[in-house]
Amino acid sequence: MSKVVLEITMSLDGFIAGSNISRELPMGEGGNLLHQWLFNLKTDQDAIILDELMKNTGALILGNRTYATAIDDAWGGTSPFSAPAFVLAHKTPKEIVDGFVFVTDGIESALTKAKAIAGDKIIWVMGGANVMQQFLKSGLIDELNIHIAPLLFAKGTRLFDFIGNEKIALEKIMVKDTPGATHLKYKISRLGR
Amino acid sequence: MSKVVLEITMSLDGFIAGSNISRELPMGEGGNLLHQWLFNLKTDQDAIILDELMKNTGALILGNRTYATAIDDAWGGTSPFSAPAFVLAHKTPKEIVDGFVFVTDGIESALTKAKAIAGDKIIWVMGGANVMQQFLKSGLIDELNIHIAPLLFAKGTRLFDFIGNEKIALEKIMVKDTPGATHLKYKISRLGR
Repeated sequence: MSKVVLEITMSLDGFIAGSNISRELPMGEGGNLLHQWLFNLKTDQDAIILDELMKNTGALILGNRTYATAIDDAWGGTSPFSAPAFVLAHKTPKEIVDGFVFVTDGIESALTKAKAIAGDKIIWVMGGANVMQQFLKSGLIDELNIHIAPLLFAKGTRLFDFIGNEKIALEKIMVKDTPGATHLKYKISRLGR
Repeated sequence: MSKVVLEITMSLDGFIAGSNISRELPMGEGGNLLHQWLFNLKTDQDAIILDELMKNTGALILGNRTYATAIDDAWGGTSPFSAPAFVLAHKTPKEIVDGFVFVTDGIESALTKAKAIAGDKIIWVMGGANVMQQFLKSGLIDELNIHIAPLLFAKGTRLFDFIGNEKIALEKIMVKDTPGATHLKYKISRLGR
């Protein structure tokens, strides 16, 4: 049975992208500062964490905006993932990049499709914020893997916003610290209001 | 020369208190869930971290609301701190609990008074959120000591909100992990917009 994992890098103040997201700036203004653990500050430990994520992923789920802004420039028009990626959208575009599958009937449908192919591997819910918030609110996430970047971003897109009224207890199951990120892995357990 | 340290416990989603703060619930609804590292989940490591904070503190700065809501119940009408605590307020009340000093002319004045007595020890800016945000925005904080509680709080008072438009680079100088908190210590370095 595959686990559903919300995995993303966020600033200490909770932002996962800067302001003014565009094709030129798919992570928004200053967005590159969030991901230094994948670039200029990358250590062997960071490389192992990224490698394990890629290796353990059986399917991905992302939003249409993330697909549309990232696919041309950041991802160079090809999927960077070896597993199939399901894109939540209102309609299916005429041309779709190989490796992506459009889903137009909501998150539960995307999850069913992802589970059908992920096997024992994880289903990585990779963003954007709105998709992650829908999954959190619906109680469909098993684990949070949050990479906290050493940065106060001050403005942009918050990850944990509009997630409802329910407090959610977390059980920490891994912490690894590198100069570019504090890698935190939590299991979710519902707590109620 | 004393360092100015913002030290507080926050949920993974950035909240330092629950909704509906009152004298009965000085941390708001569910606020006790934030501080399990000081109570039911307290380990030797947590105890050392708290002990070092108390031992190294030469002065504290807090807001009037924190003073007013916490002093009667949570603190039982006496100061829990061995160092003097400066309370930012619009006016000085008639009766003041021993150990507290009221400051009515702003954060820089409070800081000057705190520095005059803190010696080589730290000045602990302990909240509430509004006071912390004023200090952050004014560039008066040297270090952030954030205890991340394993919890999504969903609503309440956010620490890092209204801190301006400037991104702030952080240099991580300590990480200690316990079941009840991930203790993160950062040095602040300004980055610009």
